[in-house]
Amino acid sequence: MNHHWPSVAIVGAGLIGGSVGRALLQRGLARRVIGIGRSQQSLDGARRTGAVTETSLDPAAVAEADLVLVATSVASIPELLDAVDAAVRPGTLLTDAGSTKASIVAAWERKRARRRGRFVGSHPLAGSHRRGPEAAQGDLFNGRVVIVTPANATPADDAVAVGDFWSALGATVYLMRPKEHDRIVAATSHAPHLLAAAIATATPAAALPFTAGGWRDTTRIAAGDAQLWADILLDNSTAVIAALRRIASASEKMLAAIEAGDRRRLVILLSRAKDARDALGS
Amino acid sequence: MNHHWPSVAIVGAGLIGGSVGRALLQRGLARRVIGIGRSQQSLDGARRTGAVTETSLDPAAVAEADLVLVATSVASIPELLDAVDAAVRPGTLLTDAGSTKASIVAAWERKRARRRGRFVGSHPLAGSHRRGPEAAQGDLFNGRVVIVTPANATPADDAVAVGDFWSALGATVYLMRPKEHDRIVAATSHAPHLLAAAIATATPAAALPFTAGGWRDTTRIAAGDAQLWADILLDNSTAVIAALRRIASASEKMLAAIEAGDRRRLVILLSRAKDARDALGS
Repeated sequence: MNHHWPSVAIVGAGLIGGSVGRALLQRGLARRVIGIGRSQQSLDGARRTGAVTETSLDPAAVAEADLVLVATSVASIPELLDAVDAAVRPGTLLTDAGSTKASIVAAWERKRARRRGRFVGSHPLAGSHRRGPEAAQGDLFNGRVVIVTPANATPADDAVAVGDFWSALGATVYLMRPKEHDRIVAATSHAPHLLAAAIATATPAAALPFTAGGWRDTTRIAAGDAQLWADILLDNSTAVIAALRRIASASEKMLAAIEAGDRRRLVILLSRAKDARDALGS
Repeated sequence: MNHHWPSVAIVGAGLIGGSVGRALLQRGLARRVIGIGRSQQSLDGARRTGAVTETSLDPAAVAEADLVLVATSVASIPELLDAVDAAVRPGTLLTDAGSTKASIVAAWERKRARRRGRFVGSHPLAGSHRRGPEAAQGDLFNGRVVIVTPANATPADDAVAVGDFWSALGATVYLMRPKEHDRIVAATSHAPHLLAAAIATATPAAALPFTAGGWRDTTRIAAGDAQLWADILLDNSTAVIAALRRIASASEKMLAAIEAGDRRRLVILLSRAKDARDALGS
Protein backbone atom coordinates (compact mmCIF):
# COMPACT_ATOMS: atom_id res chain seq x y z
CA MET A 1 0.00 0.00 0.00
CA ASN A 2 1.36 3.32 -1.09
CA HIS A 3 0.49 5.93 1.49
CA HIS A 4 2.69 8.69 0.21
CA TRP A 5 2.59 10.75 -2.97
CA PRO A 6 5.46 13.29 -3.13
CA SER A 7 3.57 15.57 -5.54
CA VAL A 8 -0.20 15.71 -5.92
CA ALA A 9 -1.95 18.00 -8.41
CA ILE A 10 -5.51 19.13 -7.69
CA VAL A 11 -7.49 20.60 -10.57
CA GLY A 12 -10.25 22.65 -8.96
CA ALA A 13 -9.39 23.56 -5.36
CA GLY A 14 -12.94 24.13 -4.05
CA LEU A 15 -14.65 22.38 -1.14
CA ILE A 16 -13.59 18.85 -2.18
CA GLY A 17 -10.27 19.65 -3.85
CA GLY A 18 -9.25 22.04 -1.09
CA SER A 19 -10.17 19.52 1.60
CA VAL A 20 -8.08 16.84 -0.10
CA GLY A 21 -5.13 19.24 -0.23
CA ARG A 22 -5.43 20.16 3.44
CA ALA A 23 -5.83 16.51 4.45
CA LEU A 24 -2.73 15.48 2.44
CA LEU A 25 -0.59 18.23 3.95
CA GLN A 26 -1.91 17.94 7.49
CA ARG A 27 -1.32 14.17 7.45
CA GLY A 28 2.12 14.51 5.85
CA LEU A 29 1.02 12.34 2.92
CA ALA A 30 2.29 14.74 0.25
CA ARG A 31 5.14 17.22 0.16
CA ARG A 32 3.83 19.31 -2.73
CA VAL A 33 0.20 19.98 -3.55
CA ILE A 34 -0.15 21.87 -6.82
CA GLY A 35 -3.46 23.71 -7.09
CA ILE A 36 -4.59 24.18 -10.68
CA GLY A 37 -7.55 26.36 -11.66
CA ARG A 38 -8.85 29.14 -13.86
CA SER A 39 -9.03 31.86 -11.20
CA GLN A 40 -5.82 33.09 -9.56
CA GLN A 41 -7.92 34.68 -6.81
CA SER A 42 -9.51 31.35 -5.93
CA LEU A 43 -6.11 29.60 -6.07
CA ASP A 44 -4.64 32.26 -3.77
CA GLY A 45 -7.47 31.50 -1.34
CA ALA A 46 -6.58 27.81 -1.47
CA ARG A 47 -2.92 28.57 -0.74
CA ARG A 48 -3.79 30.96 2.09
CA THR A 49 -5.95 28.33 3.79
CA GLY A 50 -3.26 25.66 3.54
CA ALA A 51 -4.95 23.57 0.85
CA VAL A 52 -2.10 23.79 -1.69
CA THR A 53 1.61 24.59 -1.61
CA GLU A 54 1.78 26.11 -5.10
CA THR A 55 -0.61 27.18 -7.81
CA SER A 56 -0.87 27.22 -11.58
CA LEU A 57 -3.37 28.43 -14.17
CA ASP A 58 -2.00 25.89 -16.65
CA PRO A 59 -3.23 22.25 -16.60
CA ALA A 60 0.20 21.28 -17.98
CA ALA A 61 1.52 21.78 -14.43
CA VAL A 62 0.32 18.22 -13.76
CA ALA A 63 3.53 17.02 -15.45
CA GLU A 64 5.24 17.18 -12.05
CA ALA A 65 2.56 15.19 -10.19
CA ASP A 66 2.52 11.55 -9.08
CA LEU A 67 -1.25 11.67 -8.67
CA VAL A 68 -3.81 14.06 -10.15
CA LEU A 69 -7.29 14.72 -8.75
CA VAL A 70 -9.82 16.53 -10.94
CA ALA A 71 -12.36 18.03 -8.54
CA THR A 72 -14.41 20.29 -10.81
CA SER A 73 -18.05 20.23 -11.88
CA VAL A 74 -19.34 17.04 -13.48
CA ALA A 75 -19.78 18.46 -16.98
CA SER A 76 -16.19 19.75 -17.18
CA ILE A 77 -14.43 16.59 -15.99
CA PRO A 78 -14.10 14.52 -19.24
CA GLU A 79 -12.48 17.40 -21.10
CA LEU A 80 -10.17 18.25 -18.20
CA LEU A 81 -9.15 14.60 -17.89
CA ASP A 82 -8.17 14.70 -21.58
CA ALA A 83 -6.09 17.86 -21.01
CA VAL A 84 -4.49 16.40 -17.87
CA ASP A 85 -3.74 13.11 -19.58
CA ALA A 86 -1.98 14.87 -22.44
CA ALA A 87 0.41 16.50 -19.95
CA VAL A 88 1.15 13.85 -17.31
CA ARG A 89 4.15 11.56 -17.17
CA PRO A 90 3.17 8.09 -18.47
CA GLY A 91 1.76 5.88 -15.68
CA THR A 92 0.58 8.76 -13.48
CA LEU A 93 -2.48 7.90 -11.37
CA LEU A 94 -5.56 10.06 -12.12
CA THR A 95 -8.90 10.27 -10.39
CA ASP A 96 -11.83 12.66 -10.09
CA ALA A 97 -14.47 13.56 -7.53
CA GLY A 98 -17.55 13.93 -9.71
CA SER A 99 -21.03 13.09 -8.39
CA THR A 100 -21.80 10.97 -11.45
CA LYS A 101 -19.55 8.26 -12.78
CA ALA A 102 -20.91 6.40 -15.84
CA SER A 103 -20.42 9.13 -18.43
CA ILE A 104 -17.06 10.28 -17.01
CA VAL A 105 -15.66 6.76 -16.92
CA ALA A 106 -17.08 5.96 -20.39
CA ALA A 107 -15.45 9.09 -21.86
CA TRP A 108 -12.10 8.00 -20.47
CA GLU A 109 -12.47 4.38 -21.56
CA ARG A 110 -13.33 5.28 -25.16
CA LYS A 111 -9.72 6.39 -25.62
CA ARG A 112 -8.11 3.93 -23.17
CA ALA A 113 -5.64 2.60 -25.76
CA ARG A 114 -4.12 6.07 -26.28
CA ARG A 115 -3.99 7.16 -22.59
CA ARG A 116 -0.76 8.08 -20.80
CA GLY A 117 -2.21 8.09 -17.29
CA ARG A 118 -4.09 5.45 -15.28
CA PHE A 119 -7.56 6.81 -14.44
CA VAL A 120 -10.07 5.37 -11.98
CA GLY A 121 -13.19 7.41 -11.11
CA SER A 122 -14.07 8.34 -7.52
CA HIS A 123 -16.98 9.94 -5.72
CA PRO A 124 -16.44 11.12 -2.15
CA LEU A 125 -19.87 11.32 -0.45
CA ALA A 126 -18.94 14.49 1.32
CA GLY A 127 -20.69 17.21 -0.63
CA SER A 128 -22.23 20.22 1.01
CA HIS A 129 -24.31 23.18 -0.01
CA ARG A 130 -21.26 25.21 1.03
CA ARG A 131 -18.61 25.79 -1.60
CA GLY A 132 -15.13 27.07 -2.24
CA PRO A 133 -11.72 26.66 -0.60
CA GLU A 134 -12.92 28.59 2.48
CA ALA A 135 -15.30 25.71 3.26
CA ALA A 136 -12.51 23.13 2.88
CA GLN A 137 -11.62 21.04 5.93
CA GLY A 138 -8.72 18.62 6.36
CA ASP A 139 -10.97 16.14 8.19
CA LEU A 140 -13.79 16.23 5.61
CA PHE A 141 -13.24 12.61 4.55
CA ASN A 142 -12.76 11.20 8.02
CA GLY A 143 -15.31 8.42 8.43
CA ARG A 144 -17.00 9.35 5.14
CA VAL A 145 -17.66 6.98 2.26
CA VAL A 146 -15.80 7.24 -1.04
CA ILE A 147 -17.04 5.12 -3.94
CA VAL A 148 -14.32 4.14 -6.43
CA THR A 149 -15.67 2.97 -9.81
CA PRO A 150 -13.32 0.89 -11.97
CA ALA A 151 -14.37 0.11 -15.54
CA ASN A 152 -14.22 -3.43 -16.93
CA ALA A 153 -10.80 -2.78 -18.42
CA THR A 154 -9.34 -1.09 -15.32
CA PRO A 155 -6.39 -3.07 -13.88
CA ALA A 156 -7.23 -4.11 -10.31
CA ASP A 157 -3.97 -2.51 -9.11
CA ASP A 158 -5.13 0.91 -10.32
CA ALA A 159 -8.48 0.59 -8.50
CA VAL A 160 -6.66 -0.44 -5.33
CA ALA A 161 -4.20 2.45 -5.67
CA VAL A 162 -7.01 5.03 -5.94
CA GLY A 163 -8.84 3.35 -3.05
CA ASP A 164 -5.65 3.58 -0.95
CA PHE A 165 -5.47 7.31 -1.69
CA TRP A 166 -8.91 7.96 -0.18
CA SER A 167 -8.32 5.49 2.69
CA ALA A 168 -5.21 7.45 3.61
CA LEU A 169 -7.44 10.54 3.99
CA GLY A 170 -9.61 8.67 6.51
CA ALA A 171 -12.42 7.52 4.20
CA THR A 172 -14.14 4.14 3.96
CA VAL A 173 -13.77 3.00 0.35
CA TYR A 174 -16.26 0.92 -1.66
CA LEU A 175 -15.60 -0.40 -5.15
CA MET A 176 -18.57 -0.36 -7.51
CA ARG A 177 -19.35 -0.38 -11.25
CA PRO A 178 -19.98 3.17 -12.56
CA LYS A 179 -23.61 2.47 -13.55
CA GLU A 180 -24.39 0.86 -10.21
CA HIS A 181 -22.92 3.94 -8.52
CA ASP A 182 -25.13 6.23 -10.60
CA ARG A 183 -28.28 4.23 -9.78
CA ILE A 184 -27.49 4.39 -6.06
CA VAL A 185 -26.74 8.12 -5.87
CA ALA A 186 -29.82 8.87 -8.00
CA ALA A 187 -31.85 7.35 -5.15
CA THR A 188 -29.86 8.75 -2.22
CA SER A 189 -28.93 12.17 -3.55
CA HIS A 190 -30.06 13.32 -7.01
CA ALA A 191 -33.79 12.53 -6.83
CA PRO A 192 -34.02 13.88 -3.23
CA HIS A 193 -32.30 17.05 -4.47
CA LEU A 194 -34.89 17.57 -7.19
CA LEU A 195 -37.73 17.03 -4.70
CA ALA A 196 -36.18 19.36 -2.15
CA ALA A 197 -36.02 22.00 -4.88
CA ALA A 198 -39.64 21.27 -5.85
CA ILE A 199 -40.79 21.69 -2.22
CA ALA A 200 -38.84 24.95 -1.87
CA THR A 201 -40.31 26.32 -5.11
CA ALA A 202 -43.87 25.15 -4.45
CA THR A 203 -44.10 26.74 -0.99
CA PRO A 204 -46.09 29.97 -1.37
CA ALA A 205 -44.06 33.03 -0.38
CA ALA A 206 -46.76 33.93 2.18
CA ALA A 207 -46.12 30.61 3.92
CA LEU A 208 -42.35 31.03 4.29
CA PRO A 209 -42.52 32.91 7.64
CA PHE A 210 -44.28 29.82 9.04
CA THR A 211 -41.67 27.24 8.14
CA ALA A 212 -40.02 25.41 11.00
CA GLY A 213 -37.29 22.78 11.43
CA GLY A 214 -39.02 20.20 9.21
CA TRP A 215 -39.15 22.45 6.15
CA ARG A 216 -35.60 23.68 6.75
CA ASP A 217 -34.23 20.12 6.91
CA THR A 218 -36.25 18.84 3.98
CA THR A 219 -35.25 21.67 1.65
CA ARG A 220 -31.66 22.32 2.87
CA ILE A 221 -29.97 20.75 -0.18
CA ALA A 222 -32.04 22.95 -2.50
CA ALA A 223 -29.56 25.71 -1.56
CA GLY A 224 -26.92 23.88 -3.62
CA ASP A 225 -25.43 25.53 -6.69
CA ALA A 226 -27.95 25.47 -9.56
CA GLN A 227 -25.39 25.10 -12.38
CA LEU A 228 -23.58 22.27 -10.66
CA TRP A 229 -26.83 20.40 -9.91
CA ALA A 230 -28.25 20.94 -13.39
CA ASP A 231 -25.17 19.16 -14.79
CA ILE A 232 -25.54 16.28 -12.33
CA LEU A 233 -29.27 15.80 -13.01
CA LEU A 234 -28.80 15.99 -16.79
CA ASP A 235 -25.87 13.61 -16.76
CA ASN A 236 -27.67 11.01 -14.62
CA SER A 237 -31.14 11.55 -16.06
CA THR A 238 -32.13 7.91 -16.65
CA ALA A 239 -31.38 6.81 -13.09
CA VAL A 240 -32.86 10.04 -11.65
CA ILE A 241 -36.13 9.48 -13.51
CA ALA A 242 -36.29 5.87 -12.31
CA ALA A 243 -35.66 6.96 -8.69
CA LEU A 244 -38.31 9.69 -8.93
CA ARG A 245 -40.77 7.12 -10.25
CA ARG A 246 -40.19 4.94 -7.17
CA ILE A 247 -40.67 7.94 -4.87
CA ALA A 248 -43.83 9.01 -6.73
CA SER A 249 -45.21 5.49 -6.40
CA ALA A 250 -44.50 5.49 -2.62
CA SER A 251 -46.17 8.87 -2.19
CA GLU A 252 -49.17 7.80 -4.31
CA LYS A 253 -49.70 4.82 -2.01
CA MET A 254 -49.83 7.19 0.98
CA LEU A 255 -52.13 9.57 -0.91
CA ALA A 256 -54.49 6.71 -1.76
CA ALA A 257 -54.66 5.77 1.93
CA ILE A 258 -55.36 9.41 2.83
CA GLU A 259 -58.09 9.73 0.20
CA ALA A 260 -59.69 6.46 1.33
CA GLY A 261 -59.49 7.60 4.97
CA ASP A 262 -57.63 4.33 5.64
CA ARG A 263 -55.76 5.19 8.83
CA ARG A 264 -54.50 1.65 9.42
CA ARG A 265 -52.88 1.49 5.98
CA LEU A 266 -51.39 5.01 6.30
CA VAL A 267 -49.83 4.12 9.66
CA ILE A 268 -48.24 1.01 8.07
CA LEU A 269 -46.77 3.07 5.22
CA LEU A 270 -45.46 5.82 7.52
CA SER A 271 -44.03 3.20 9.89
CA ARG A 272 -42.06 1.61 7.03
CA ALA A 273 -40.61 5.01 6.19
CA LYS A 274 -39.78 5.62 9.85
CA ASP A 275 -38.04 2.23 10.09
CA ALA A 276 -35.90 3.02 7.01
CA ARG A 277 -35.04 6.44 8.44
CA ASP A 278 -34.42 5.24 12.00
CA ALA A 279 -31.90 2.67 10.70
CA LEU A 280 -29.62 5.58 9.75
CA GLY A 281 -29.65 7.56 13.01
CA SER A 282 -30.21 11.30 13.26
CA MET B 1 -51.79 42.03 29.34
CA ASN B 2 -52.07 39.18 31.79
CA HIS B 3 -48.68 37.57 32.17
CA HIS B 4 -49.46 35.42 35.16
CA TRP B 5 -51.72 32.42 35.58
CA PRO B 6 -51.71 31.09 39.15
CA SER B 7 -52.77 27.60 38.06
CA VAL B 8 -52.27 26.11 34.61
CA ALA B 9 -53.46 22.62 33.67
CA ILE B 10 -51.66 20.75 30.89
CA VAL B 11 -53.42 17.77 29.37
CA GLY B 12 -50.67 15.68 27.75
CA ALA B 13 -47.25 16.52 29.19
CA GLY B 14 -45.09 15.36 26.26
CA LEU B 15 -42.59 17.44 24.27
CA ILE B 16 -44.89 20.43 23.82
CA GLY B 17 -46.92 20.20 27.03
CA GLY B 18 -43.82 19.49 29.12
CA SER B 19 -41.94 22.38 27.54
CA VAL B 20 -44.83 24.77 28.29
CA GLY B 21 -44.83 23.58 31.92
CA ARG B 22 -41.09 24.06 32.30
CA ALA B 23 -41.23 27.47 30.64
CA LEU B 24 -44.09 28.62 32.92
CA LEU B 25 -42.29 27.50 36.08
CA GLN B 26 -38.81 28.66 35.06
CA ARG B 27 -40.17 32.09 34.16
CA GLY B 28 -42.29 32.30 37.32
CA LEU B 29 -45.44 32.74 35.24
CA ALA B 30 -47.41 30.07 37.08
CA ARG B 31 -47.34 28.80 40.65
CA ARG B 32 -49.05 25.49 39.99
CA VAL B 33 -48.81 23.42 36.81
CA ILE B 34 -51.17 20.44 36.93
CA GLY B 35 -50.09 17.68 34.55
CA ILE B 36 -53.01 15.55 33.39
CA GLY B 37 -52.57 12.33 31.42
CA ARG B 38 -53.43 8.68 31.10
CA SER B 39 -50.08 7.25 32.20
CA GLN B 40 -48.88 7.83 35.75
CA GLN B 41 -45.38 6.80 34.67
CA SER B 42 -45.27 9.51 32.01
CA LEU B 43 -46.70 12.08 34.47
CA ASP B 44 -44.05 11.10 37.04
CA GLY B 45 -41.44 11.76 34.34
CA ALA B 46 -42.92 15.21 33.75
CA ARG B 47 -42.81 16.00 37.48
CA ARG B 48 -39.25 14.72 37.84
CA THR B 49 -38.04 16.92 34.99
CA GLY B 50 -39.71 20.04 36.42
CA ALA B 51 -42.47 20.28 33.83
CA VAL B 52 -45.39 20.07 36.31
CA THR B 53 -45.85 20.60 40.05
CA GLU B 54 -48.63 18.05 40.47
CA THR B 55 -50.26 15.31 38.44
CA SER B 56 -53.68 13.77 37.91
CA LEU B 57 -55.13 10.93 35.84
CA ASP B 58 -58.56 12.66 35.94
CA PRO B 59 -59.37 15.43 33.42
CA ALA B 60 -61.72 16.85 36.10
CA ALA B 61 -58.55 18.20 37.79
CA VAL B 62 -58.80 21.15 35.37
CA ALA B 63 -61.47 22.58 37.75
CA GLU B 64 -58.64 24.31 39.67
CA ALA B 65 -56.98 25.85 36.61
CA ASP B 66 -57.08 29.41 35.28
CA LEU B 67 -55.86 28.24 31.88
CA VAL B 68 -55.91 24.78 30.31
CA LEU B 69 -53.64 23.62 27.47
CA VAL B 70 -54.55 20.39 25.64
CA ALA B 71 -51.30 19.17 24.07
CA THR B 72 -52.22 15.70 22.87
CA SER B 73 -52.44 14.16 19.40
CA VAL B 74 -54.64 15.92 16.86
CA ALA B 75 -57.33 13.20 16.70
CA SER B 76 -57.89 13.19 20.47
CA ILE B 77 -58.17 16.95 21.00
CA PRO B 78 -61.89 17.62 20.23
CA GLU B 79 -63.06 14.94 22.67
CA LEU B 80 -60.61 16.05 25.35
CA LEU B 81 -61.71 19.67 24.95
CA ASP B 82 -65.30 18.51 25.56
CA ALA B 83 -64.22 16.67 28.72
CA VAL B 84 -62.13 19.62 29.91
CA ASP B 85 -64.94 22.09 29.21
CA ALA B 86 -67.40 20.03 31.25
CA ALA B 87 -65.11 20.34 34.28
CA VAL B 88 -63.65 23.87 34.17
CA ARG B 89 -64.91 26.88 36.09
CA PRO B 90 -67.01 29.09 33.75
CA GLY B 91 -64.83 31.59 31.89
CA THR B 92 -61.62 29.54 32.05
CA LEU B 93 -59.29 30.09 29.08
CA LEU B 94 -58.61 26.95 27.01
CA THR B 95 -56.22 26.33 24.16
CA ASP B 96 -54.55 23.42 22.40
CA ALA B 97 -51.32 22.74 20.53
CA GLY B 98 -52.55 20.60 17.64
CA SER B 99 -50.83 20.70 14.24
CA THR B 100 -54.17 21.13 12.44
CA LYS B 101 -56.74 23.73 13.39
CA ALA B 102 -59.86 23.75 11.17
CA SER B 103 -61.49 20.56 12.43
CA ILE B 104 -60.54 21.18 16.08
CA VAL B 105 -61.90 24.74 16.05
CA ALA B 106 -65.04 23.67 14.14
CA ALA B 107 -65.75 20.91 16.69
CA TRP B 108 -65.53 23.48 19.49
CA GLU B 109 -67.61 26.08 17.68
CA ARG B 110 -70.48 23.67 16.94
CA LYS B 111 -71.34 23.69 20.66
CA ARG B 112 -70.21 27.27 21.40
CA ALA B 113 -73.58 28.27 22.95
CA ARG B 114 -73.27 25.55 25.63
CA ARG B 115 -69.55 26.03 26.46
CA ARG B 116 -68.30 26.96 29.95
CA GLY B 117 -64.73 27.80 28.90
CA ARG B 118 -63.31 30.23 26.34
CA PHE B 119 -61.35 28.25 23.74
CA VAL B 120 -58.99 29.61 21.09
CA GLY B 121 -56.86 27.16 19.07
CA SER B 122 -53.05 27.41 18.92
CA HIS B 123 -50.25 25.76 16.99
CA PRO B 124 -46.69 26.24 18.24
CA LEU B 125 -44.31 25.59 15.32
CA ALA B 126 -41.87 23.81 17.53
CA GLY B 127 -42.43 20.14 16.81
CA SER B 128 -39.63 17.65 16.65
CA HIS B 129 -39.15 14.02 15.78
CA ARG B 130 -38.24 13.65 19.47
CA ARG B 131 -41.08 13.02 21.89
CA GLY B 132 -42.03 12.76 25.54
CA PRO B 133 -41.37 14.86 28.65
CA GLU B 134 -37.65 13.97 28.57
CA ALA B 135 -37.34 15.98 25.34
CA ALA B 136 -39.11 18.99 26.88
CA GLN B 137 -37.15 22.25 27.19
CA GLY B 138 -38.15 25.43 28.95
CA ASP B 139 -36.77 27.54 26.10
CA LEU B 140 -38.51 25.58 23.32
CA PHE B 141 -40.74 28.51 22.36
CA ASN B 142 -38.10 31.18 22.56
CA GLY B 143 -38.04 32.93 19.19
CA ARG B 144 -40.42 30.33 17.70
CA VAL B 145 -43.68 31.09 15.93
CA VAL B 146 -47.05 30.24 17.47
CA ILE B 147 -50.13 30.58 15.27
CA VAL B 148 -53.33 31.40 17.19
CA THR B 149 -56.52 30.68 15.21
CA PRO B 150 -59.69 32.44 16.40
CA ALA B 151 -63.02 31.43 14.83
CA ASN B 152 -65.46 34.03 13.50
CA ALA B 153 -67.36 34.02 16.78
CA THR B 154 -64.27 34.20 19.03
CA PRO B 155 -64.22 37.42 21.12
CA ALA B 156 -61.07 39.38 20.26
CA ASP B 157 -60.16 39.48 23.98
CA ASP B 158 -59.93 35.70 24.09
CA ALA B 159 -57.65 35.57 21.04
CA VAL B 160 -55.43 38.25 22.60
CA ALA B 161 -55.36 36.40 25.94
CA VAL B 162 -54.19 33.17 24.31
CA GLY B 163 -51.68 35.12 22.23
CA ASP B 164 -50.34 36.72 25.43
CA PHE B 165 -49.88 33.29 26.96
CA TRP B 166 -47.52 32.18 24.15
CA SER B 167 -45.80 35.58 24.01
CA ALA B 168 -45.01 35.23 27.71
CA LEU B 169 -43.19 31.96 26.85
CA GLY B 170 -41.00 33.81 24.36
CA ALA B 171 -42.87 33.04 21.13
CA THR B 172 -43.79 35.35 18.25
CA VAL B 173 -47.55 35.10 17.85
CA TYR B 174 -49.52 35.34 14.59
CA LEU B 175 -53.32 35.40 14.39
CA MET B 176 -54.84 33.51 11.47
CA ARG B 177 -58.12 31.87 10.43
CA PRO B 178 -58.06 28.08 11.07
CA LYS B 179 -58.43 27.14 7.39
CA GLU B 180 -55.68 29.56 6.34
CA HIS B 181 -53.46 27.98 9.01
CA ASP B 182 -54.17 24.50 7.66
CA ARG B 183 -53.36 25.54 4.09
CA ILE B 184 -50.05 27.04 5.19
CA VAL B 185 -48.85 24.11 7.30
CA ALA B 186 -49.90 21.67 4.57
CA ALA B 187 -47.31 23.42 2.37
CA THR B 188 -44.60 23.95 5.00
CA SER B 189 -44.92 20.78 7.03
CA HIS B 190 -47.51 18.13 6.13
CA ALA B 191 -46.78 17.66 2.40
CA PRO B 192 -42.98 17.78 3.00
CA HIS B 193 -43.48 15.11 5.69
CA LEU B 194 -45.26 12.80 3.27
CA LEU B 195 -42.51 13.29 0.66
CA ALA B 196 -39.74 12.74 3.20
CA ALA B 197 -41.47 9.47 4.10
CA ALA B 198 -41.79 8.56 0.40
CA ILE B 199 -38.07 9.20 -0.19
CA ALA B 200 -37.11 7.13 2.87
CA THR B 201 -39.35 4.24 1.75
CA ALA B 202 -38.34 4.36 -1.90
CA THR B 203 -34.58 4.23 -1.22
CA PRO B 204 -33.45 0.63 -1.88
CA ALA B 205 -32.00 -1.03 1.23
CA ALA B 206 -28.77 -1.68 -0.69
CA ALA B 207 -28.37 2.08 -1.20
CA LEU B 208 -28.72 3.04 2.47
CA PRO B 209 -24.98 2.63 3.30
CA PHE B 210 -24.32 5.27 0.63
CA THR B 211 -26.55 8.01 2.00
CA ALA B 212 -24.86 11.22 3.10
CA GLY B 213 -25.92 14.53 4.64
CA GLY B 214 -28.41 15.38 1.90
CA TRP B 215 -30.47 12.23 2.34
CA ARG B 216 -30.30 12.52 6.13
CA ASP B 217 -31.58 16.12 6.07
CA THR B 218 -34.25 15.47 3.46
CA THR B 219 -35.71 12.45 5.25
CA ARG B 220 -35.17 13.50 8.89
CA ILE B 221 -38.85 14.25 9.62
CA ALA B 222 -39.83 10.79 8.34
CA ALA B 223 -38.63 9.55 11.75
CA GLY B 224 -41.67 11.22 13.31
CA ASP B 225 -44.32 9.12 15.06
CA ALA B 226 -46.43 7.28 12.44
CA GLN B 227 -49.72 7.35 14.41
CA LEU B 228 -49.44 11.04 15.15
CA TRP B 229 -48.63 11.91 11.53
CA ALA B 230 -51.36 9.67 10.12
CA ASP B 231 -53.88 11.67 12.17
CA ILE B 232 -52.47 14.99 10.95
CA LEU B 233 -52.42 13.95 7.27
CA LEU B 234 -55.96 12.50 7.43
CA ASP B 235 -57.33 15.54 9.25
CA ASN B 236 -55.78 18.02 6.79
CA SER B 237 -56.19 15.87 3.68
CA THR B 238 -57.66 18.51 1.34
CA ALA B 239 -54.90 21.04 1.91
CA VAL B 240 -52.22 18.31 1.90
CA ILE B 241 -53.41 17.03 -1.48
CA ALA B 242 -53.42 20.57 -2.90
CA ALA B 243 -49.87 21.19 -1.60
CA LEU B 244 -48.63 17.87 -3.02
CA ARG B 245 -50.15 18.81 -6.37
CA ARG B 246 -48.13 22.06 -6.39
CA ILE B 247 -44.93 20.18 -5.51
CA ALA B 248 -45.62 17.52 -8.17
CA SER B 249 -46.14 20.26 -10.73
CA ALA B 250 -42.84 21.92 -9.77
CA SER B 251 -40.98 18.62 -9.99
CA GLU B 252 -42.62 17.78 -13.34
CA LYS B 253 -41.35 21.07 -14.75
CA MET B 254 -37.80 20.11 -13.73
CA LEU B 255 -38.26 16.60 -15.10
CA ALA B 256 -39.45 17.99 -18.43
CA ALA B 257 -36.32 20.16 -18.63
CA ILE B 258 -34.17 17.11 -17.82
CA GLU B 259 -35.89 14.95 -20.44
CA ALA B 260 -35.55 17.72 -23.04
CA GLY B 261 -31.88 18.17 -22.11
CA ASP B 262 -32.73 21.85 -21.58
CA ARG B 263 -29.93 22.93 -19.25
CA ARG B 264 -30.79 26.62 -19.39
CA ARG B 265 -34.37 25.98 -18.25
CA LEU B 266 -33.26 23.53 -15.53
CA VAL B 267 -30.79 26.07 -14.13
CA ILE B 268 -33.59 28.68 -13.97
CA LEU B 269 -35.89 26.27 -12.10
CA LEU B 270 -33.17 25.18 -9.67
CA SER B 271 -32.14 28.82 -9.10
CA ARG B 272 -35.71 29.74 -8.14
CA ALA B 273 -35.70 26.93 -5.59
CA LYS B 274 -32.30 28.05 -4.28
CA ASP B 275 -33.57 31.63 -3.92
CA ALA B 276 -36.60 30.46 -1.92
CA ARG B 277 -34.39 28.31 0.28
CA ASP B 278 -31.64 30.91 0.72
CA ALA B 279 -34.20 33.44 1.97
CA LEU B 280 -34.66 31.27 5.07
CA GLY B 281 -31.01 30.79 6.08
CA SER B 282 -29.44 27.46 6.96
